[in-house]
Amino acid sequence: MALSIALVHYPVRDKRGDIAATSITNFDIHDLARTARTYGVEPLYIISPMNSQKEFARRIIRHWSEGFGSCYNPSRKTALETTLVINDLGEILEDFETRGIKPLPLFVGTSARNFPNTISFKALRERIEKAEENFCIVFGTGWGLHPSLLQDFDLTLEPIKGAGPYNHLSVRSAVAIICDRLMGR
Amino acid sequence: MALSIALVHYPVRDKRGDIAATSITNFDIHDLARTARTYGVEPLYIISPMNSQKEFARRIIRHWSEGFGSCYNPSRKTALETTLVINDLGEILEDFETRGIKPLPLFVGTSARNFPNTISFKALRERIEKAEENFCIVFGTGWGLHPSLLQDFDLTLEPIKGAGPYNHLSVRSAVAIICDRLMGR
Repeated sequence: MALSIALVHYPVRDKRGDIAATSITNFDIHDLARTARTYGVEPLYIISPMNSQKEFARRIIRHWSEGFGSCYNPSRKTALETTLVINDLGEILEDFETRGIKPLPLFVGTSARNFPNTISFKALRERIEKAEENFCIVFGTGWGLHPSLLQDFDLTLEPIKGAGPYNHLSVRSAVAIICDRLMGR
Repeated sequence: MALSIALVHYPVRDKRGDIAATSITNFDIHDLARTARTYGVEPLYIISPMNSQKEFARRIIRHWSEGFGSCYNPSRKTALETTLVINDLGEILEDFETRGIKPLPLFVGTSARNFPNTISFKALRERIEKAEENFCIVFGTGWGLHPSLLQDFDLTLEPIKGAGPYNHLSVRSAVAIICDRLMGR
Protein backbone atom coordinates (compact mmCIF):
# COMPACT_ATOMS: atom_id res chain seq x y z
CA MET A 1 0.00 0.00 0.00
CA ALA A 2 2.98 2.32 -0.51
CA LEU A 3 1.17 3.93 -3.43
CA SER A 4 -2.52 4.67 -3.86
CA ILE A 5 -4.29 6.87 -6.41
CA ALA A 6 -7.34 9.12 -6.36
CA LEU A 7 -9.45 10.42 -9.23
CA VAL A 8 -11.14 13.72 -8.37
CA HIS A 9 -14.43 14.87 -9.99
CA TYR A 10 -14.75 17.93 -7.72
CA PRO A 11 -13.20 20.50 -7.38
CA VAL A 12 -11.69 20.50 -10.88
CA ARG A 13 -11.30 23.15 -13.58
CA ASP A 14 -13.55 23.53 -16.60
CA LYS A 15 -12.17 24.73 -19.94
CA ARG A 16 -12.25 28.36 -18.79
CA GLY A 17 -10.40 27.51 -15.57
CA ASP A 18 -13.49 27.95 -13.38
CA ILE A 19 -14.35 25.49 -10.63
CA ALA A 20 -16.47 22.57 -11.81
CA ALA A 21 -17.75 19.08 -11.01
CA THR A 22 -17.50 16.39 -13.69
CA SER A 23 -19.42 13.16 -14.21
CA ILE A 24 -17.93 9.83 -13.26
CA THR A 25 -17.15 7.81 -16.40
CA ASN A 26 -17.45 4.05 -16.80
CA PHE A 27 -14.21 3.93 -18.82
CA ASP A 28 -12.27 5.81 -16.14
CA ILE A 29 -13.25 3.36 -13.42
CA HIS A 30 -12.32 0.27 -15.44
CA ASP A 31 -9.12 1.64 -16.95
CA LEU A 32 -7.78 3.04 -13.69
CA ALA A 33 -8.75 -0.08 -11.73
CA ARG A 34 -6.97 -2.34 -14.21
CA THR A 35 -3.89 -0.12 -14.29
CA ALA A 36 -3.78 0.08 -10.48
CA ARG A 37 -4.17 -3.69 -10.14
CA THR A 38 -1.44 -4.32 -12.70
CA TYR A 39 1.06 -2.17 -10.81
CA GLY A 40 0.08 -3.15 -7.26
CA VAL A 41 -1.29 0.34 -6.59
CA GLU A 42 -4.13 0.37 -4.06
CA PRO A 43 -6.68 1.51 -3.22
CA LEU A 44 -8.05 3.40 -6.18
CA TYR A 45 -10.24 6.15 -4.74
CA ILE A 46 -13.02 7.58 -6.96
CA ILE A 47 -13.96 10.95 -5.50
CA SER A 48 -17.23 12.83 -5.98
CA PRO A 49 -19.46 14.65 -3.48
CA MET A 50 -22.59 13.98 -5.58
CA ASN A 51 -24.78 11.14 -4.39
CA SER A 52 -26.18 10.27 -7.83
CA GLN A 53 -22.65 10.04 -9.22
CA LYS A 54 -21.40 7.90 -6.35
CA GLU A 55 -24.39 5.56 -6.70
CA PHE A 56 -23.67 5.26 -10.43
CA ALA A 57 -20.05 4.30 -9.74
CA ARG A 58 -21.00 1.82 -7.02
CA ARG A 59 -23.57 0.18 -9.32
CA ILE A 60 -20.87 -0.38 -11.95
CA ILE A 61 -18.55 -1.88 -9.35
CA ARG A 62 -21.33 -4.13 -7.95
CA HIS A 63 -22.23 -5.36 -11.44
CA TRP A 64 -18.71 -6.57 -12.08
CA SER A 65 -18.02 -7.71 -8.50
CA GLU A 66 -21.21 -9.58 -7.63
CA GLY A 67 -23.58 -9.66 -10.57
CA PHE A 68 -23.52 -11.35 -13.96
CA GLY A 69 -20.34 -9.48 -14.82
CA SER A 70 -18.30 -11.26 -12.13
CA CYS A 71 -18.75 -14.54 -14.02
CA TYR A 72 -18.61 -13.06 -17.49
CA ASN A 73 -15.32 -11.24 -16.91
CA PRO A 74 -13.53 -12.21 -13.66
CA SER A 75 -10.52 -10.02 -14.47
CA ARG A 76 -12.75 -6.96 -14.02
CA LYS A 77 -13.88 -8.28 -10.64
CA THR A 78 -10.25 -8.65 -9.55
CA ALA A 79 -9.43 -5.15 -10.74
CA LEU A 80 -12.34 -3.53 -8.90
CA GLU A 81 -11.74 -5.25 -5.55
CA THR A 82 -9.61 -2.36 -4.35
CA THR A 83 -11.72 0.49 -5.77
CA LEU A 84 -13.52 2.76 -3.28
CA VAL A 85 -16.03 5.53 -4.00
CA ILE A 86 -15.74 8.41 -1.51
CA ASN A 87 -16.72 12.06 -0.96
CA ASP A 88 -13.42 13.88 -0.67
CA LEU A 89 -9.70 13.58 0.04
CA GLY A 90 -10.33 13.72 3.80
CA GLU A 91 -11.98 10.31 3.62
CA ILE A 92 -8.71 8.85 2.36
CA LEU A 93 -7.12 9.76 5.66
CA GLU A 94 -10.11 8.23 7.49
CA ASP A 95 -9.76 5.07 5.41
CA PHE A 96 -6.09 4.75 6.36
CA GLU A 97 -6.96 5.31 10.05
CA THR A 98 -9.81 2.79 9.96
CA ARG A 99 -7.49 0.17 8.48
CA GLY A 100 -4.70 1.09 10.90
CA ILE A 101 -2.25 1.79 8.10
CA LYS A 102 0.65 4.05 9.06
CA PRO A 103 1.95 6.54 8.23
CA LEU A 104 -0.90 8.56 6.71
CA PRO A 105 -0.31 9.18 3.00
CA LEU A 106 1.34 12.28 1.58
CA PHE A 107 -0.84 13.75 -1.17
CA VAL A 108 0.93 14.20 -4.51
CA GLY A 109 -0.84 16.44 -7.01
CA THR A 110 -0.60 16.09 -10.79
CA SER A 111 -0.50 19.07 -13.11
CA ALA A 112 0.86 20.12 -16.48
CA ARG A 113 2.80 22.88 -14.67
CA ASN A 114 5.75 22.99 -12.28
CA PHE A 115 5.38 24.18 -8.67
CA PRO A 116 7.84 24.97 -5.86
CA ASN A 117 7.06 21.53 -4.35
CA THR A 118 7.41 19.60 -7.63
CA ILE A 119 9.13 16.21 -7.27
CA SER A 120 10.69 14.28 -10.17
CA PHE A 121 9.56 10.79 -11.14
CA LYS A 122 12.99 9.48 -10.18
CA ALA A 123 12.97 11.05 -6.71
CA LEU A 124 9.43 9.86 -5.94
CA ARG A 125 10.21 6.36 -7.18
CA GLU A 126 13.21 6.19 -4.85
CA ARG A 127 11.11 7.31 -1.89
CA ILE A 128 8.44 4.69 -2.72
CA GLU A 129 11.10 1.99 -2.93
CA LYS A 130 12.39 2.87 0.54
CA ALA A 131 8.90 1.84 1.81
CA GLU A 132 8.97 4.25 4.75
CA GLU A 133 6.22 6.57 3.51
CA ASN A 134 2.83 6.22 1.87
CA PHE A 135 1.85 8.35 -1.12
CA CYS A 136 -1.49 9.06 -2.78
CA ILE A 137 -1.23 10.44 -6.31
CA VAL A 138 -4.20 12.70 -7.03
CA PHE A 139 -5.52 13.09 -10.59
CA GLY A 140 -8.11 15.57 -11.81
CA THR A 141 -10.80 15.04 -14.44
CA GLY A 142 -12.06 17.86 -16.66
CA TRP A 143 -9.27 20.38 -17.28
CA GLY A 144 -7.33 19.25 -14.21
CA LEU A 145 -7.32 19.69 -10.43
CA HIS A 146 -8.53 23.05 -9.15
CA PRO A 147 -5.72 25.27 -7.74
CA SER A 148 -7.50 25.37 -4.36
CA LEU A 149 -6.67 21.67 -4.00
CA LEU A 150 -3.20 21.75 -5.52
CA GLN A 151 -1.94 24.44 -3.15
CA ASP A 152 -2.53 22.22 -0.12
CA PHE A 153 -0.73 19.12 -1.40
CA ASP A 154 2.52 17.91 0.11
CA LEU A 155 4.11 17.39 -3.29
CA THR A 156 3.35 17.88 -6.98
CA LEU A 157 4.53 15.32 -9.51
CA GLU A 158 6.71 16.43 -12.41
CA PRO A 159 4.62 16.89 -15.59
CA ILE A 160 4.78 14.21 -18.29
CA LYS A 161 6.69 15.58 -21.26
CA GLY A 162 6.16 14.23 -24.75
CA ALA A 163 7.99 14.92 -27.98
CA GLY A 164 6.73 18.45 -28.55
CA PRO A 165 4.50 21.19 -27.12
CA TYR A 166 1.29 19.12 -27.34
CA ASN A 167 0.35 17.99 -23.86
CA HIS A 168 -3.24 16.81 -23.61
CA LEU A 169 -3.18 13.19 -22.47
CA SER A 170 -6.43 11.66 -21.23
CA VAL A 171 -6.49 11.02 -17.50
CA ARG A 172 -6.63 7.29 -18.33
CA SER A 173 -3.38 7.55 -20.26
CA ALA A 174 -1.70 9.80 -17.68
CA VAL A 175 -2.51 7.37 -14.84
CA ALA A 176 -1.09 4.47 -16.86
CA ILE A 177 2.15 6.28 -17.69
CA ILE A 178 2.67 7.54 -14.13
CA CYS A 179 2.05 4.12 -12.54
CA ASP A 180 4.50 2.60 -15.01
CA ARG A 181 7.17 5.22 -14.32
CA LEU A 182 6.81 4.87 -10.55
CA MET A 183 6.14 1.16 -10.18
CA GLY A 184 6.95 -0.55 -13.51
CA ARG A 185 9.73 -3.09 -13.83
CA MET B 1 7.35 9.16 -38.76
CA ALA B 2 9.79 6.66 -37.25
CA LEU B 3 6.97 5.21 -35.16
CA SER B 4 3.31 4.78 -36.07
CA ILE B 5 0.59 2.76 -34.34
CA ALA B 6 -2.40 0.76 -35.49
CA LEU B 7 -5.49 -0.32 -33.55
CA VAL B 8 -7.02 -3.48 -35.01
CA HIS B 9 -10.76 -4.34 -34.67
CA TYR B 10 -10.53 -7.40 -36.94
CA PRO B 11 -9.17 -10.08 -36.74
CA VAL B 12 -8.96 -10.16 -32.94
CA ARG B 13 -9.76 -12.81 -30.33
CA ASP B 14 -12.94 -12.96 -28.29
CA LYS B 15 -12.93 -14.21 -24.69
CA ARG B 16 -12.86 -17.86 -25.87
CA GLY B 17 -9.96 -17.17 -28.22
CA ASP B 18 -12.11 -17.41 -31.34
CA ILE B 19 -11.77 -14.94 -34.18
CA ALA B 20 -13.93 -11.84 -33.77
CA ALA B 21 -14.57 -8.27 -34.92
CA THR B 22 -15.06 -5.56 -32.28
CA SER B 23 -16.76 -2.18 -32.44
CA ILE B 24 -14.78 1.01 -32.74
CA THR B 25 -14.98 3.00 -29.51
CA ASN B 26 -15.09 6.77 -29.18
CA PHE B 27 -12.77 6.67 -26.14
CA ASP B 28 -10.17 4.60 -28.01
CA ILE B 29 -9.95 7.09 -30.86
CA HIS B 30 -9.54 10.12 -28.60
CA ASP B 31 -7.18 8.53 -26.07
CA LEU B 32 -4.91 6.98 -28.69
CA ALA B 33 -4.89 10.13 -30.82
CA ARG B 34 -3.92 12.28 -27.83
CA THR B 35 -1.23 9.83 -26.72
CA ALA B 36 0.17 9.57 -30.24
CA ARG B 37 0.22 13.34 -30.65
CA THR B 38 1.95 13.80 -27.28
CA TYR B 39 4.77 11.43 -28.21
CA GLY B 40 5.16 12.42 -31.85
CA VAL B 41 3.85 9.04 -33.02
CA GLU B 42 2.09 9.19 -36.38
CA PRO B 43 -0.09 8.25 -38.11
CA LEU B 44 -2.57 6.52 -35.81
CA TYR B 45 -4.32 3.93 -37.98
CA ILE B 46 -7.80 2.77 -36.89
CA ILE B 47 -8.44 -0.54 -38.64
CA SER B 48 -11.80 -2.14 -39.36
CA PRO B 49 -13.14 -3.81 -42.50
CA MET B 50 -16.76 -2.89 -41.63
CA ASN B 51 -18.17 0.12 -43.49
CA SER B 52 -20.61 1.14 -40.74
CA GLN B 53 -17.78 1.12 -38.19
CA LYS B 54 -15.44 3.10 -40.41
CA GLU B 55 -18.17 5.67 -41.10
CA PHE B 56 -18.76 5.98 -37.33
CA ALA B 57 -15.07 6.64 -36.72
CA ARG B 58 -14.81 9.12 -39.57
CA ARG B 59 -17.89 10.99 -38.29
CA ILE B 60 -16.23 11.40 -34.88
CA ILE B 61 -13.04 12.66 -36.50
CA ARG B 62 -14.99 15.09 -38.73
CA HIS B 63 -16.94 16.45 -35.76
CA TRP B 64 -13.77 17.39 -33.89
CA SER B 65 -11.79 18.41 -36.99
CA GLU B 66 -14.32 20.50 -38.92
CA GLY B 67 -17.56 20.82 -37.00
CA PHE B 68 -18.55 22.55 -33.78
CA GLY B 69 -16.02 20.47 -31.86
CA SER B 70 -13.05 22.01 -33.68
CA CYS B 71 -13.86 25.37 -32.03
CA TYR B 72 -15.04 23.93 -28.72
CA ASN B 73 -11.92 21.85 -28.12
CA PRO B 74 -9.04 22.63 -30.53
CA SER B 75 -6.68 20.19 -28.75
CA ARG B 76 -8.86 17.32 -29.99
CA LYS B 77 -8.63 18.68 -33.53
CA THR B 78 -4.84 18.75 -33.27
CA ALA B 79 -4.76 15.21 -31.92
CA LEU B 80 -6.96 13.81 -34.68
CA GLU B 81 -5.09 15.45 -37.58
CA THR B 82 -2.90 12.36 -38.00
CA THR B 83 -5.61 9.71 -37.46
CA LEU B 84 -6.60 7.57 -40.45
CA VAL B 85 -9.40 5.01 -40.69
CA ILE B 86 -8.50 2.09 -42.98
CA ASN B 87 -9.51 -1.48 -43.89
CA ASP B 88 -6.48 -3.56 -43.02
CA LEU B 89 -2.73 -3.57 -42.38
CA GLY B 90 -2.01 -3.73 -46.11
CA GLU B 91 -3.35 -0.20 -46.48
CA ILE B 92 -0.63 1.02 -44.13
CA LEU B 93 1.95 -0.06 -46.70
CA GLU B 94 -0.09 1.67 -49.42
CA ASP B 95 -0.23 4.83 -47.31
CA PHE B 96 3.55 4.84 -46.91
CA GLU B 97 3.99 4.29 -50.66
CA THR B 98 1.51 7.04 -51.55
CA ARG B 99 3.37 9.48 -49.33
CA GLY B 100 6.72 8.31 -50.64
CA ILE B 101 7.99 7.44 -47.16
CA LYS B 102 10.85 4.94 -47.09
CA PRO B 103 11.55 2.39 -45.87
CA LEU B 104 8.20 0.63 -45.46
CA PRO B 105 7.42 0.00 -41.78
CA LEU B 106 8.22 -3.18 -39.92
CA PHE B 107 5.11 -4.45 -38.14
CA VAL B 108 5.56 -4.98 -34.41
CA GLY B 109 2.85 -7.03 -32.71
CA THR B 110 1.78 -6.66 -29.08
CA SER B 111 0.83 -9.60 -26.91
CA ALA B 112 0.84 -10.70 -23.28
CA ARG B 113 3.06 -13.64 -24.32
CA ASN B 114 6.62 -14.00 -25.55
CA PHE B 115 7.44 -15.21 -29.08
CA PRO B 116 10.65 -16.23 -30.87
CA ASN B 117 10.74 -12.78 -32.49
CA THR B 118 10.07 -10.83 -29.27
CA ILE B 119 12.09 -7.60 -28.95
CA SER B 120 12.66 -5.74 -25.68
CA PHE B 121 11.55 -2.16 -25.11
CA LYS B 122 15.20 -1.14 -24.77
CA ALA B 123 16.26 -2.76 -28.05
CA LEU B 124 13.32 -1.31 -30.00
CA ARG B 125 13.89 2.15 -28.51
CA GLU B 126 17.52 2.04 -29.64
CA ARG B 127 16.50 1.05 -33.18
CA ILE B 128 13.93 3.88 -33.28
CA GLU B 129 16.56 6.38 -32.12
CA LYS B 130 18.90 5.34 -34.94
CA ALA B 131 16.16 6.61 -37.33
CA GLU B 132 17.09 4.19 -40.11
CA GLU B 133 13.91 2.09 -39.94
CA ASN B 134 10.18 2.74 -39.58
CA PHE B 135 8.05 0.73 -37.16
CA CYS B 136 4.30 0.31 -36.80
CA ILE B 137 3.20 -1.03 -33.41
CA VAL B 138 0.00 -3.03 -33.81
CA PHE B 139 -2.51 -3.28 -30.95
CA GLY B 140 -5.56 -5.53 -30.74
CA THR B 141 -8.94 -4.74 -29.23
CA GLY B 142 -11.13 -7.40 -27.61
CA TRP B 143 -8.94 -10.15 -26.10
CA GLY B 144 -5.97 -9.21 -28.29
CA LEU B 145 -4.67 -9.71 -31.82
CA HIS B 146 -5.62 -12.96 -33.51
CA PRO B 147 -2.69 -15.40 -33.87
CA SER B 148 -3.18 -15.43 -37.66
CA LEU B 149 -1.96 -11.82 -37.66
CA LEU B 150 0.74 -12.14 -35.01
CA GLN B 151 2.52 -14.95 -36.82
CA ASP B 152 3.22 -12.75 -39.83
CA PHE B 153 4.70 -9.79 -37.96
CA ASP B 154 8.36 -8.86 -38.22
CA LEU B 155 8.69 -8.42 -34.47
CA THR B 156 6.65 -8.79 -31.28
CA LEU B 157 7.07 -6.30 -28.47
CA GLU B 158 8.00 -7.55 -24.99
CA PRO B 159 4.89 -7.79 -22.75
CA ILE B 160 4.31 -5.07 -20.13
CA LYS B 161 4.95 -6.54 -16.70
CA GLY B 162 3.37 -5.12 -13.59
CA ALA B 163 3.86 -5.91 -9.93
CA GLY B 164 2.19 -9.33 -9.89
CA PRO B 165 0.43 -11.87 -12.09
CA TYR B 166 -2.49 -9.57 -12.94
CA ASN B 167 -2.07 -8.42 -16.52
CA HIS B 168 -5.24 -6.96 -18.01
CA LEU B 169 -4.49 -3.39 -19.01
CA SER B 170 -6.97 -1.64 -21.27
CA VAL B 171 -5.67 -1.03 -24.77
CA ARG B 172 -5.80 2.72 -24.01
CA SER B 173 -3.45 2.23 -21.05
CA ALA B 174 -1.18 -0.19 -22.92
CA VAL B 175 -0.73 2.25 -25.81
CA ALA B 176 0.12 5.07 -23.39
CA ILE B 177 2.71 3.00 -21.51
CA ILE B 178 4.32 1.66 -24.67
CA CYS B 179 4.57 5.09 -26.34
CA ASP B 180 6.12 6.46 -23.13
CA ARG B 181 8.64 3.62 -22.90
CA LEU B 182 9.66 3.93 -26.55
CA MET B 183 9.45 7.69 -27.07
CA GLY B 184 9.18 9.36 -23.64
CA ARG B 185 11.86 11.71 -22.36
